[in-house]
Amino acid sequence: MRSLRHPTAAEIELERVLYALSDPVRLAIVRQLDREGEATCGALDCGRPKSSMSHHFRVLREAGVISCINEGATRRNSLRRKELDRLFPGLLKAVLRVERA
Amino acid sequence: MRSLRHPTAAEIELERVLYALSDPVRLAIVRQLDREGEATCGALDCGRPKSSMSHHFRVLREAGVISCINEGATRRNSLRRKELDRLFPGLLKAVLRVERA
Repeated sequence: MRSLRHPTAAEIELERVLYALSDPVRLAIVRQLDREGEATCGALDCGRPKSSMSHHFRVLREAGVISCINEGATRRNSLRRKELDRLFPGLLKAVLRVERA
Repeated sequence: MRSLRHPTAAEIELERVLYALSDPVRLAIVRQLDREGEATCGALDCGRPKSSMSHHFRVLREAGVISCINEGATRRNSLRRKELDRLFPGLLKAVLRVERA
């Protein structure tokens, strides 16, 4: 697998990050990565269709919210927390502290 | 003009608020309301087409981000800051502190 394109920190835009976080499935992925630190796509899909999950992972990656590293046949995902916290102090914390309804 | 429907505080959802904030025009409206406290639609349109602005005001209102009160021929808009701060502590502050690129 080729490596995936990630925006540099300078390319990360608030609007795209907010959009990436504005979906319940993507928010669930971000919450799980917040709890677990790192997870494969398989561990994050919760039985949802692979095509739909690919879309959600791409939106999160292209917005700069998550990092996706290919490793053999699997892909390791993690939050780009350090960069997000530096660019948008308090944003991730405010989003993650909201309990699921 | 009839009065407009606003979600109650209990109906305000994080995902919809994030989506409402994920657009540069809507963010500009929110920033201006943050600075000025209250403004008419005319004072907020910055010369943008009225139809497009109506859409943006509706998205913000239906998400629970702004309150829109008809008053004669004008409409007064304001941030629902107190409710948003109670529901999502730190979120609005984190979004508003990011400088425009």
